Amino acid sequence: MYNLLKGKRGIITGALDENSIAWKVAEKAHEEGATFVLTNAPIAMRMGEIKVLAEKTGSQIVPADATNVDELTNLFTQSQEILGGKIDFVLHSIGMSVNIRKKIPYTESNYDYFMKGIDVSAMSFHKMLAVAKKLDAIAEGGSVVALTYMAAQRTYPFYTDMADIKAMLESIARSFGYHYGVEKKVRINTVSQSPTKTTAGTGIKGFGDFYDFANSIAPLGNADAESCADYCVTLFSDLTRMVTMQNLFHDGGYSSTGVSDDVMKRLGIGSEGE
Amino acid sequence: MYNLLKGKRGIITGALDENSIAWKVAEKAHEEGATFVLTNAPIAMRMGEIKVLAEKTGSQIVPADATNVDELTNLFTQSQEILGGKIDFVLHSIGMSVNIRKKIPYTESNYDYFMKGIDVSAMSFHKMLAVAKKLDAIAEGGSVVALTYMAAQRTYPFYTDMADIKAMLESIARSFGYHYGVEKKVRINTVSQSPTKTTAGTGIKGFGDFYDFANSIAPLGNADAESCADYCVTLFSDLTRMVTMQNLFHDGGYSSTGVSDDVMKRLGIGSEGE
Amino acid sequence: MYNLLKGKRGIITGALDENSIAWKVAEKAHEEGATFVLTNAPIAMRMGEIKVLAEKTGSQIVPADATNVDELTNLFTQSQEILGGKIDFVLHSIGMSVNIRKKIPYTESNYDYFMKGIDVSAMSFHKMLAVAKKLDAIAEGGSVVALTYMAAQRTYPFYTDMADIKAMLESIARSFGYHYGVEKKVRINTVSQSPTKTTAGTGIKGFGDFYDFANSIAPLGNADAESCADYCVTLFSDLTRMVTMQNLFHDGGYSSTGVSDDVMKRLGIGSEGE
Amino acid sequence: MYNLLKGKRGIITGALDENSIAWKVAEKAHEEGATFVLTNAPIAMRMGEIKVLAEKTGSQIVPADATNVDELTNLFTQSQEILGGKIDFVLHSIGMSVNIRKKIPYTESNYDYFMKGIDVSAMSFHKMLAVAKKLDAIAEGGSVVALTYMAAQRTYPFYTDMADIKAMLESIARSFGYHYGVEKKVRINTVSQSPTKTTAGTGIKGFGDFYDFANSIAPLGNADAESCADYCVTLFSDLTRMVTMQNLFHDGGYSSTGVSDDVMKRLGIGSEGE
Repeated sequence: MYNLLKGKRGIITGALDENSIAWKVAEKAHEEGATFVLTNAPIAMRMGEIKVLAEKTGSQIVPADATNVDELTNLFTQSQEILGGKIDFVLHSIGMSVNIRKKIPYTESNYDYFMKGIDVSAMSFHKMLAVAKKLDAIAEGGSVVALTYMAAQRTYPFYTDMADIKAMLESIARSFGYHYGVEKKVRINTVSQSPTKTTAGTGIKGFGDFYDFANSIAPLGNADAESCADYCVTLFSDLTRMVTMQNLFHDGGYSSTGVSDDVMKRLGIGSEGE
Repeated sequence: MYNLLKGKRGIITGALDENSIAWKVAEKAHEEGATFVLTNAPIAMRMGEIKVLAEKTGSQIVPADATNVDELTNLFTQSQEILGGKIDFVLHSIGMSVNIRKKIPYTESNYDYFMKGIDVSAMSFHKMLAVAKKLDAIAEGGSVVALTYMAAQRTYPFYTDMADIKAMLESIARSFGYHYGVEKKVRINTVSQSPTKTTAGTGIKGFGDFYDFANSIAPLGNADAESCADYCVTLFSDLTRMVTMQNLFHDGGYSSTGVSDDVMKRLGIGSEGE
Repeated sequence: MYNLLKGKRGIITGALDENSIAWKVAEKAHEEGATFVLTNAPIAMRMGEIKVLAEKTGSQIVPADATNVDELTNLFTQSQEILGGKIDFVLHSIGMSVNIRKKIPYTESNYDYFMKGIDVSAMSFHKMLAVAKKLDAIAEGGSVVALTYMAAQRTYPFYTDMADIKAMLESIARSFGYHYGVEKKVRINTVSQSPTKTTAGTGIKGFGDFYDFANSIAPLGNADAESCADYCVTLFSDLTRMVTMQNLFHDGGYSSTGVSDDVMKRLGIGSEGE
Repeated sequence: MYNLLKGKRGIITGALDENSIAWKVAEKAHEEGATFVLTNAPIAMRMGEIKVLAEKTGSQIVPADATNVDELTNLFTQSQEILGGKIDFVLHSIGMSVNIRKKIPYTESNYDYFMKGIDVSAMSFHKMLAVAKKLDAIAEGGSVVALTYMAAQRTYPFYTDMADIKAMLESIARSFGYHYGVEKKVRINTVSQSPTKTTAGTGIKGFGDFYDFANSIAPLGNADAESCADYCVTLFSDLTRMVTMQNLFHDGGYSSTGVSDDVMKRLGIGSEGE
């Protein structure tokens, strides 16, 4: 639409199916003139679906287990070859908690699962960045975004160990953002997105149900995947070149709303009467 | 009980009646061995009631309009004479919004009322501190606490202009806390208290009703006036001598809870099942 | 460059001279296809300079004292007539502290000046929004940005009463953002900008000097006026349509950096050795 | 001094030597009337030193590797037997980063070491709480404190992976605090302490050097171990019974100070002149 990413090269993780935020990011980045590589863990990849996206956006797929430094090295090396230069933007949209999948209460978390969740969902971000930096694979001023959720700041019981993992992810963005910023002006931010009706989100017991509540709180309603993709595009563009080490709420105002008149009404308690 | 404030001299504002947080602070401070002066604006003072408190705690009453620098000067001067030395602690518990009283919607705020609210509820804090500093009336290491509410961080529609005023109050605590800290090691903090069933709180349309909702969110339930008084006592004591320029949530965990299982159940949406 | 604001109508305050952030915003908004009205307080306006900008951007100038509801009403009414429709974006870039100008120490603030600073720098924002809402002058989904500074969160001694005023400004953005969001999906954010070498900024004793220190802390260095303008353009665009009630740091990572190796070196203390 | 912890039973981890914050906490808790068990990882324990503390405070020592659920189970079981009842307070003061010890730059972190650091410094906290909850070993209204550092919010290059680990630790406090609060009114907070001249702190290259810089920023100067111990005592007492899920800065105002006049002077840049 605007050519905001014209000539930019990217790597987009996490496009599982058309409900994925990453899927929408790929579509929008394509519309805005970017070329990119799609990647996912071989184990998570639904090859039939992602091929549709690859075709639609003229992208190639390079599978990579994001917990594996060698595979990430291959990803960044191949991506530069495929795209013909250094990488300008990266989307990290990888999250998985076995404790959530197995509906294990937070206070009884299995620690192997917890550590697995950390490795997949947070350490993978550090690994991607470390590999990229070592290879000098990200162009000066490049932009990296990881998706996160507000459970890193406030407790949502259904989100169990992912809350702590997202807190670590957001911290990695700041820590690595400092070093990569000083050295190459690469900026690293997290986008803290509304609950979203993705296939992954819907899998969390209570998370889907919570969707409506959050929607009643947020003055603009929950932000959907498409608007999130639009927002990511602005963060990948040069127009935000001085924004780094930030956790950016993309949530229709939810994070700054204590309670809404709408929720007060639903609870049958006094509204403001305005 | 513990003699935590033994030998300390204080000034306590805002004890309107026995539901006031300030009233409880006075009772607790007395129990903990402090002597203090009670003060209120002449216009707000219910002389019959505050005399009961003064008698109970062996205190004298020095009326002062907290928006008036001369009256505040008199307050700090007289208090030192009455108590026999410099002041060790001050409680600022003063808040008033004509816009709330008159149920004027936030977006239609009357600006004279808004400015009046600022003067009474926030600027009064700066004035107290400025007068105290000018008179060198607060002892080295003294402690000042102002009561505030989380509307300064997140919007609660019923709180209208007091949200913005409390944000300013909290900023004044930081700004003045820097200067008074450097010069005299006086520390200045705000306590962000749960919705509380005080006479003032109950007067805010929606605020009273909101009490139950907040109570359902907070893992420990809403903090009451008595526990708030206990907390203030710790902040007046020497044990917290290095805590300054902080906004301290005293709210049973409300501020760090996104949603509770209890609220999810009340809304008829899925709970965690733990 | 991108036509990000094609067809959008705006009001831009605060373009004093070519060093002003607002000046750059006007230039960028023009490049991105917007039409807009320029405004300033008659008393602050340097007619010779702003006419250059007006000519360059094809804009008209509508003087208005932002503390005066009638003049603001005229501003929004005329702007809609001039631009041919409802307003899509507004920049609030208005700040003035007599206490700073007169170099009055924070703890000795003059309260008339303080109140004047509040009226000009914070209440003006509420008034603009209230007038706009009353006139229904902002288009559905419109975007309002006010410029602020991190002194609202942490104390910078040289910023004196503007710290408290900016804290209130940021709160007004949240409070009004709730109501205007619910009703018209208008979003309201503040951009917390690096110290910037504007004519206004340079006038603050210590602020200019502080510029270099902040520059040494921020991994990307201080953000300049031009990059700030670019960022504002993204916030005015539809791509950020679900971002509201946020305080967004535009500061090269300063706000998330505790200390930098660079500052450690300048202070002659141990660096990381990385 | 005040009998604030009279009759309370505790578990204190991390008292390595007399410079440890935990050592001071033990001394203060003893003075305030508490009985407690001292514990440390067998590998970290300096038996000669800790025996001095045990003798001085009438405590027993129960070694336990805090990453080992069985040993933690033994710790909580034995402690209840030794102390004659449920535990009222717990201090978590455990942190170790092999990456820091080996002076590995953050961007080249070794992931086995990183995971080890997480296990020792953050997951140990979850494990302690999970064991305690399973055994129902903490008394209703009990209080748990973990020590942390502001690197969880802002980057300090020398703190490398511990920044991300502390971010996770603070999140665990919130997450677990929700559940333990709802069920048993147990409250869980973190204390974010000034850089402190402990044996552990001094071991971090740059951290020790940074001490002076932080001291110049903080209006009250850096908080020392003894004042931290006093603060922990208030958090263990009943007076703070409604404070939970908070990260509490104990830092002489450092966290809320952007820059101080003192640092401005040291850098040879303009001071406020107040």
